Amino acid sequence: MQFSLLDKIRQANPLIHCITNYVVANYTANGLLALGASPLMSANVQEMSDIQHFSKGLLLNIGTLNHSDLDAMICAGRAANALNVPVVLDPVGVGATPYRKQAVASLLQTVKMSIIRGNAGEIATLAEMDWQVKGVDAGQGQADFAAMTQAVAQKYHCIVAMSGEIDRISDGKRVVNIHNGTPLFTRITGAGCLLGAVFAAFLSVADQDQAFQATIEACTSYNIAGELATQGILPQQSGQFAVQLLDCLATLRPTDISTRARVSDE
Amino acid sequence: MQFSLLDKIRQANPLIHCITNYVVANYTANGLLALGASPLMSANVQEMSDIQHFSKGLLLNIGTLNHSDLDAMICAGRAANALNVPVVLDPVGVGATPYRKQAVASLLQTVKMSIIRGNAGEIATLAEMDWQVKGVDAGQGQADFAAMTQAVAQKYHCIVAMSGEIDRISDGKRVVNIHNGTPLFTRITGAGCLLGAVFAAFLSVADQDQAFQATIEACTSYNIAGELATQGILPQQSGQFAVQLLDCLATLRPTDISTRARVSDE
Amino acid sequence: MQFSLLDKIRQANPLIHCITNYVVANYTANGLLALGASPLMSANVQEMSDIQHFSKGLLLNIGTLNHSDLDAMICAGRAANALNVPVVLDPVGVGATPYRKQAVASLLQTVKMSIIRGNAGEIATLAEMDWQVKGVDAGQGQADFAAMTQAVAQKYHCIVAMSGEIDRISDGKRVVNIHNGTPLFTRITGAGCLLGAVFAAFLSVADQDQAFQATIEACTSYNIAGELATQGILPQQSGQFAVQLLDCLATLRPTDISTRARVSDE
Repeated sequence: MQFSLLDKIRQANPLIHCITNYVVANYTANGLLALGASPLMSANVQEMSDIQHFSKGLLLNIGTLNHSDLDAMICAGRAANALNVPVVLDPVGVGATPYRKQAVASLLQTVKMSIIRGNAGEIATLAEMDWQVKGVDAGQGQADFAAMTQAVAQKYHCIVAMSGEIDRISDGKRVVNIHNGTPLFTRITGAGCLLGAVFAAFLSVADQDQAFQATIEACTSYNIAGELATQGILPQQSGQFAVQLLDCLATLRPTDISTRARVSDE
Repeated sequence: MQFSLLDKIRQANPLIHCITNYVVANYTANGLLALGASPLMSANVQEMSDIQHFSKGLLLNIGTLNHSDLDAMICAGRAANALNVPVVLDPVGVGATPYRKQAVASLLQTVKMSIIRGNAGEIATLAEMDWQVKGVDAGQGQADFAAMTQAVAQKYHCIVAMSGEIDRISDGKRVVNIHNGTPLFTRITGAGCLLGAVFAAFLSVADQDQAFQATIEACTSYNIAGELATQGILPQQSGQFAVQLLDCLATLRPTDISTRARVSDE
Repeated sequence: MQFSLLDKIRQANPLIHCITNYVVANYTANGLLALGASPLMSANVQEMSDIQHFSKGLLLNIGTLNHSDLDAMICAGRAANALNVPVVLDPVGVGATPYRKQAVASLLQTVKMSIIRGNAGEIATLAEMDWQVKGVDAGQGQADFAAMTQAVAQKYHCIVAMSGEIDRISDGKRVVNIHNGTPLFTRITGAGCLLGAVFAAFLSVADQDQAFQATIEACTSYNIAGELATQGILPQQSGQFAVQLLDCLATLRPTDISTRARVSDE
């Protein structure tokens, strides 16, 4: 497996438009900058369409969604679709409230997503499986994660990336498992949200028919940056981890990825 | 004095719903995660009631309040009251503008608070005492802090926690002084705001008749995490302190609290 | 050249009202605190006028502007003008969308600015020069930066500070070049946004006829804090740099500034 997209991001410095929640906006922007991309945060419906003309990727994250944000997402998403700008959806806590469920349904009806990224609870909700949801956390349930990921990919004709102890990525046909990562990702806010933005950055420099490969590469790279960010700290040092994750995204080398990658077929 | 609630938080991982200002949302979320709780940030009135059905504690922080946030707080607060979810109010800068004063008055009329947390200026405003307010800072004035804290507790039939060089906590009958802490808390934004969220987390795992005790334990624990976070840094290193406070919330042990606690009756 | 304003800020602890974007609000607040000022973030039109009565400086930053923020900025800006509170405008990404262009035009028509701060692309847009804008980044173009900075200063009768490899500051008559700084400023989000807030803090303690001098001193001090913040880290460690920049703003001494300053006339 080749890992060439990280260098492409650093060369192209793609602008990624993020309509994301205010909790993680700063960390997402710093993460994209560390990776080599260029973040633009705006949820103002009056400029959503204009921004897609120079945006190379669009992230829709519903973490602190309100009515006005939803309008902006639909407007931006439609414009992105028309201009072939890849769109990543992060349906944060979609199972937590009826409002979020309806909002995500309306997004999925109006915008063609390239990737849906979520934790087990969120993907289970989209798969309409039984799941004990707890707020925006993954929650608990018994399920065949790989089958669930694949089912949602088939349902929405896109790539689905399910975060967990093992990350699953499916394009509806295949399912790939990514074994890299660290539990510290779950100890800081926005690690998953940033991954959504990272997906958009990797898609932005990939050929359209290489989107599945780009998603695997993005997730593997990000998880390995997380592994490297745990070096020299205790497993509880979430504050320092958040800082070092940015450092490691910036210093990550393709050889780090190729030598550490643990990717397997389902 | 026993300090058993920290372990309970880490076991129960309670979901704390925060309607808080956008300045500190990220830091508050990371602080709750470090402590062992699970943050959910949302100020969308359309899901405020639903969230209280799985929330274990609610924080209302008016730092960057607008009309829509206020509606959300009233809606969430009422639902929380109906479901016995404890509510913490942080009336940030309440004395600074008529708008904030009216907003807090309307919150206090419609929602039963478990704890009101504020600095001297904010508590003085609620006590309707003369005070030289300066924005969202504590400001300056001459007052018997203990008496002021107790008066507000009696007025609103709740616990009041006044942050300062010495923290005062009163349930209207007793007043307790907490001598732990560090001046670095005042050198970063959101240290007080995070304490409000920490109060909600401690209340969420305490028996209802142990709320006063839980508030003391929360404040003592948080202040000791702050003391530990100053280790190895200069008194001006506010950037590093903010990082280490998260680390120390995550690594804090009950024995750290019991050996370092400096709590006295007024 | 004397550098006396930093000490004045630390003595006066001026309250700086920031109407700024949600991406950088936390970092801006922590940066102002580190410097010795006192941040107040609010964009609620119902308290904009009241706040100017105790605010010592006002920052208007359009990074994530919406209609309601714009109303708040105009209201706050007019009140600030009436009360002689200095106003700093940061027209983030003004060339990126028609919405931003119109919003900035309406701000410049209704509010008298003391300083406009921007990158080359933003200042070029205000100068109505040809420029290849890329989102909120500086973009690329051929221009005489000094002439451009001076032209905008003349057009809007204020000081203009253009950030870049060399920072240019003009009051319309003179142009000064500041050679201090570090490329790491461009690797974190909000370094420029924080500089806007720092400008407001320096203006707040300067005599009105010393505004140009204060702007130069502010920019030089900030850039030197940035230089000091790179000590002991790799050029890619943007996470650690963001932390150390706060530390260095807090520990910066007047002698650091006077010994390191590299300021030249155009």
